[in-house]
Amino acid sequence: MAVRTAAAIAHPNIAFIKYWGNKDDLLRLPLNGSISMNLGTLHTRTIVSFRDELRCDTLKINGKEISGEALIRVRNFLQIIRSMSTENRFASVESINNFPIGAGIASSAAAFAALALAGSTAAGMELSEAECSRLARRGSGSACRSVPAGYSEWLAGEDDLSSLSVSIAAQDYWDLIDLIIIVSENHKKVGSTAGHALAATSPFQHSRVLSAPERLQECREAIQNRDFNRLADVSEKDCTMMHAVMMTQKPPLFYWEPLSLEIMKTIMEWRKDGIPCFATLDAGPNVHIICPASVSMALQPRLEKIAGVKEIIRSNIGGSAVLV
Amino acid sequence: MAVRTAAAIAHPNIAFIKYWGNKDDLLRLPLNGSISMNLGTLHTRTIVSFRDELRCDTLKINGKEISGEALIRVRNFLQIIRSMSTENRFASVESINNFPIGAGIASSAAAFAALALAGSTAAGMELSEAECSRLARRGSGSACRSVPAGYSEWLAGEDDLSSLSVSIAAQDYWDLIDLIIIVSENHKKVGSTAGHALAATSPFQHSRVLSAPERLQECREAIQNRDFNRLADVSEKDCTMMHAVMMTQKPPLFYWEPLSLEIMKTIMEWRKDGIPCFATLDAGPNVHIICPASVSMALQPRLEKIAGVKEIIRSNIGGSAVLV
Repeated sequence: MAVRTAAAIAHPNIAFIKYWGNKDDLLRLPLNGSISMNLGTLHTRTIVSFRDELRCDTLKINGKEISGEALIRVRNFLQIIRSMSTENRFASVESINNFPIGAGIASSAAAFAALALAGSTAAGMELSEAECSRLARRGSGSACRSVPAGYSEWLAGEDDLSSLSVSIAAQDYWDLIDLIIIVSENHKKVGSTAGHALAATSPFQHSRVLSAPERLQECREAIQNRDFNRLADVSEKDCTMMHAVMMTQKPPLFYWEPLSLEIMKTIMEWRKDGIPCFATLDAGPNVHIICPASVSMALQPRLEKIAGVKEIIRSNIGGSAVLV
Repeated sequence: MAVRTAAAIAHPNIAFIKYWGNKDDLLRLPLNGSISMNLGTLHTRTIVSFRDELRCDTLKINGKEISGEALIRVRNFLQIIRSMSTENRFASVESINNFPIGAGIASSAAAFAALALAGSTAAGMELSEAECSRLARRGSGSACRSVPAGYSEWLAGEDDLSSLSVSIAAQDYWDLIDLIIIVSENHKKVGSTAGHALAATSPFQHSRVLSAPERLQECREAIQNRDFNRLADVSEKDCTMMHAVMMTQKPPLFYWEPLSLEIMKTIMEWRKDGIPCFATLDAGPNVHIICPASVSMALQPRLEKIAGVKEIIRSNIGGSAVLV
């Protein structure tokens, strides 16, 4: 049988309302919904080919053959695709990122969004956006948010069928910019999959989850009304809440570095002084400074002057995962 | 009538299980109990004199005449003493600290413990330790913990009568040292009295208060059994929990400075490597490193090597508030 190939591009995303902790770790059903925006400047491009001659699934990232846990995770994911389709051969997966992986820019989100789309297409399926989002979730929870375009809300749902993301505003609806300050390029000591599983050991996780619907509504309305201050307030609070849960887990997980805190506190001061900007961090030390595109050019040189800041990645808002 | 004078010395304290938030702000009845140790090397020495010729209460701290809010707080406190006693004259209060005030070393705790003892004695009363602790609480909540000796537990209680501190172990029961790293000598932007009143605006305060009895028991037992690792685990967790509440209050209260976080993370690493030490912070940026006296001499030079650390104050454990 002929080689069947497909290629897709997907963007990482940065969450305003965070995902932390599952009600089902295997299916990656989250305890609370979450909201993010896709990062258009950053992407992962993935080619999947199902081939007769392969004796196992293979994975290359940025040109390098990968084994170990990352390969196992991809194999498990390809197994789900095979079980959904008539394709039962092994596949080669080649992924190229244009951004550093494992440092708090959600590389696995872009990776599994692209893999879900390319893999399902190569396997002969034509998934709807909802179906593709649901599938991507099985590889990495936040990947489901990278499937729809622009501002994306992951509806927590109750089961595999109902847990998926939808776009709540297109990428051109509101022109925000993410200035990502790279605090560390080191790989995380504790990956987020392991961290999620321990979320329940924090005495604060229950309150965080219980109060998430209010923050989701606040965030959704802030985006729909392009109300920057409202988005800033709720995002800042939700970020602190997630990191407070992480820091009170057993064992404690401190993703904040001193420089992260320095930047967060500086940004809070600037916002008090009337500059529209706020900081948010995913499961890593890098700080994402969100601001309207109109102020981003003036903000960037000010950020570069903070002692210790070396690299800033600038991103606009991205579209959906697409076949290429 | 003759001048009536008394002088007392009291120590500040550092809390292992923290006090944050009241069920009665006026009476300073706390939402949860707390446990601390007195810092013997640091003290406040206070002289109170009730005199015929005074036309109002006066206050001197470290030789400087004080007015404004600090004076009002002391006057309100002297008013309580007058209402309890037959003394109805105004008083002069002179306080001398041998440590910097307003930077996270609980200066108000030592101040009101000394004032409660000196003031009540000058007014002709002979209060029991329990009565004096209860009185000190009215001036500053944590001051009630500085009245009894050594390791002190504040029993939250239900009303003015039942809310006071008792010693759970004498100062020579367990030879711990506090190495206080002065991160900032600046006065706090938000004082803790104002911060306490906003504790309820954090979505985490309720869980913190609800789970405090477990941590109190854990801490009490750790002290009674001289179990350093147990004390370290529960104190570190309780400290993070209090600061998580502060950071998620409205408005957020970030007492941690980048250097505070740097030290906290370094200490966590050292402890993983087997060095018995842990870090805790009250409502300020200074980091208190607690360790057995036997390792404190080796630890201090290592702490001094952390970039940015300028001043370290070393304290042993202190006794009760005493008349001098």
